[in-house]
Amino acid sequence: MAGKKTQKTRCVHVNVGKGYDILIREGILSYAGEETAKVCPKAVKAAVVCDGNAFVPHGGPVEGDLWDAGLSCAQYILEPGEQNKNIGHYAEILAFLAENRLTREDCLVALGGGVTGDMAGFAAATYLRGISYVQIPTTLLAMVDSSVGGKTAIDLPAGKNLAGAFCQPSLVLCDPLTLKTLPDDVFRDGCAEVIKYGVLYDRDFFLKLKALAETDRTGQSLKQKLAKDLEEIIETCVSFKRNVVEQDEFDRGERKKLNLGHTFGHAIEHCSHYGQSHGSAVAAGMAIMARAAVRKGYMDEADARLLEETLQLYGLPVTTAYPAQQLAEAAMSDKKSSQYAIDLVVPRSIGNCELVRIETKDLQDWIEAGLAW
Amino acid sequence: MAGKKTQKTRCVHVNVGKGYDILIREGILSYAGEETAKVCPKAVKAAVVCDGNAFVPHGGPVEGDLWDAGLSCAQYILEPGEQNKNIGHYAEILAFLAENRLTREDCLVALGGGVTGDMAGFAAATYLRGISYVQIPTTLLAMVDSSVGGKTAIDLPAGKNLAGAFCQPSLVLCDPLTLKTLPDDVFRDGCAEVIKYGVLYDRDFFLKLKALAETDRTGQSLKQKLAKDLEEIIETCVSFKRNVVEQDEFDRGERKKLNLGHTFGHAIEHCSHYGQSHGSAVAAGMAIMARAAVRKGYMDEADARLLEETLQLYGLPVTTAYPAQQLAEAAMSDKKSSQYAIDLVVPRSIGNCELVRIETKDLQDWIEAGLAW
Repeated sequence: MAGKKTQKTRCVHVNVGKGYDILIREGILSYAGEETAKVCPKAVKAAVVCDGNAFVPHGGPVEGDLWDAGLSCAQYILEPGEQNKNIGHYAEILAFLAENRLTREDCLVALGGGVTGDMAGFAAATYLRGISYVQIPTTLLAMVDSSVGGKTAIDLPAGKNLAGAFCQPSLVLCDPLTLKTLPDDVFRDGCAEVIKYGVLYDRDFFLKLKALAETDRTGQSLKQKLAKDLEEIIETCVSFKRNVVEQDEFDRGERKKLNLGHTFGHAIEHCSHYGQSHGSAVAAGMAIMARAAVRKGYMDEADARLLEETLQLYGLPVTTAYPAQQLAEAAMSDKKSSQYAIDLVVPRSIGNCELVRIETKDLQDWIEAGLAW
Repeated sequence: MAGKKTQKTRCVHVNVGKGYDILIREGILSYAGEETAKVCPKAVKAAVVCDGNAFVPHGGPVEGDLWDAGLSCAQYILEPGEQNKNIGHYAEILAFLAENRLTREDCLVALGGGVTGDMAGFAAATYLRGISYVQIPTTLLAMVDSSVGGKTAIDLPAGKNLAGAFCQPSLVLCDPLTLKTLPDDVFRDGCAEVIKYGVLYDRDFFLKLKALAETDRTGQSLKQKLAKDLEEIIETCVSFKRNVVEQDEFDRGERKKLNLGHTFGHAIEHCSHYGQSHGSAVAAGMAIMARAAVRKGYMDEADARLLEETLQLYGLPVTTAYPAQQLAEAAMSDKKSSQYAIDLVVPRSIGNCELVRIETKDLQDWIEAGLAW
């Protein structure tokens, strides 16, 4: 890495599998080639899988940078959107890798949001039974969540993320400058997952996020208010995630806590036929869970109100119009655990959550309790 | 395991991943339920993926046995044949698992030949990012080769086994009685891989195989001649394979030797559009390689002649009519390694082989040298 970069780059090392770095810095994208070549020293080719949104601003520069680093480069462009995270596009990416005759020594670069990272990661995990891949997330959601930890997946007609692999990337590059071109609602979506880390692990971090959004600077967008702190925010979030993934790579225990807001969030997404975005559904899911936690005696009302208030400061929803019964059915149709019991992530307070196993027959009652005060 | 079985069951333990047993015994199939329940103690359901050939004699009994062991059971029947080892059927198996709502605690049972084992194993490796699976190979080829070692895969239009995962089974059950219903040519196919282990690792084992086939018992088929020794033969072969897999799970070094005869064998299969069977192509591939090894100064002619003679005793081919150029092109189209060099498994003598890296431009010359004396 060039000297000018060394001092400022934040690095979070993940000690899982062969171990890898998450590098965070404004402008790190322009080092994509040299950093990729460093972690894949035997690679001759790099296949870039890129979504259409990321391609326009970043596809050309990243490809050029890979060529400059001595890697022969081909690019597959994916239509953006969750509905494309299917087995048909997975097959297309595999065919693209085979047509370009990538070998086991070569690597894949996933450039884009969570859909791209999940699907390209799964293709890398399975092409020739596994080649190296580099995650370059270009949304806040992907930076703090899906691009770290090696959960790759595609959706099946029966549900989200039903096929996939645990396969750690060789490197993750997070460049906050890529968020500048992100539409505001997509940025807000990522903020929901950022807030989630505060609720899960760190009250002070949560309060800082609240304070940042409260800053009264006339005319400033949320993105502008956060801009100066983004590197640190991303570093904080991926550090939390790193800690969890190191403890529980295969999602048997501690890692399940990262699903805070997701059981109800997935149900909302499902009911909306994926018309409602993941982040906003997770925000509503967290708020529903917080109110239910108050009703069930797990948490003080003040903390649940604090969460609501913060989500609203970020322009995120705090409930849904779908009825409890429909949400409960959707949650069950999508679940991966036992059909008799389900693990909920229940907040005790802001900064402290726990896994609570409930019988599935009680799920609707929990949702009912949380839909409104 | 019932007392009557304990004394006779041969067990080869594979210390890779969580570790698993390969149990070999005539009649072990009727313990499929209890053995599966033992290795998947939390499973409520077992999904059986079974090929049409195995279904007729074994599908019903195995399913009944799983029910008896307390596992709720559903069966997916696959059309037999390499042409079905594709992403479409992989997607169907995933859908079948999702429709039957298998959870991470449940398990898959692969019942059939190599195609079934490879594809069902890949589905198990990726459904919900991995569930347990049990291999019950019903061909000799699958028993001694594909069902052991965790190489799962599907074919892509661009070539064989281009997508897959390294994912070890939880148990392998080999019942030589299932080979009784196997057509003679399919049995012979498996013999090619059995002979391969002799050439790779053990001259005495090789000579024993030759002697068994030479036994002059009027009217006895090859299968009848081997019948009494099958348990021991299978145990010997899977022990060799176990040793290799324990050394090199991910196919970076020693495990590549198991490809003896396969580089040229795959080329023959490819040229025949998979009309020629895998085992017979590998037999021809081994003989071609042996003659080439003599010409290139690696091996004595006597040993190559010994291999030819033995393959012929087993009714297996020792060359092919496809010209060297076409075979070289096919070998290159199918390969997974670098485009500039290729690793050949070259016999030094019967029982001792080595990896030799050659430039791909020399491949045709090697084939040419080996097609005939």
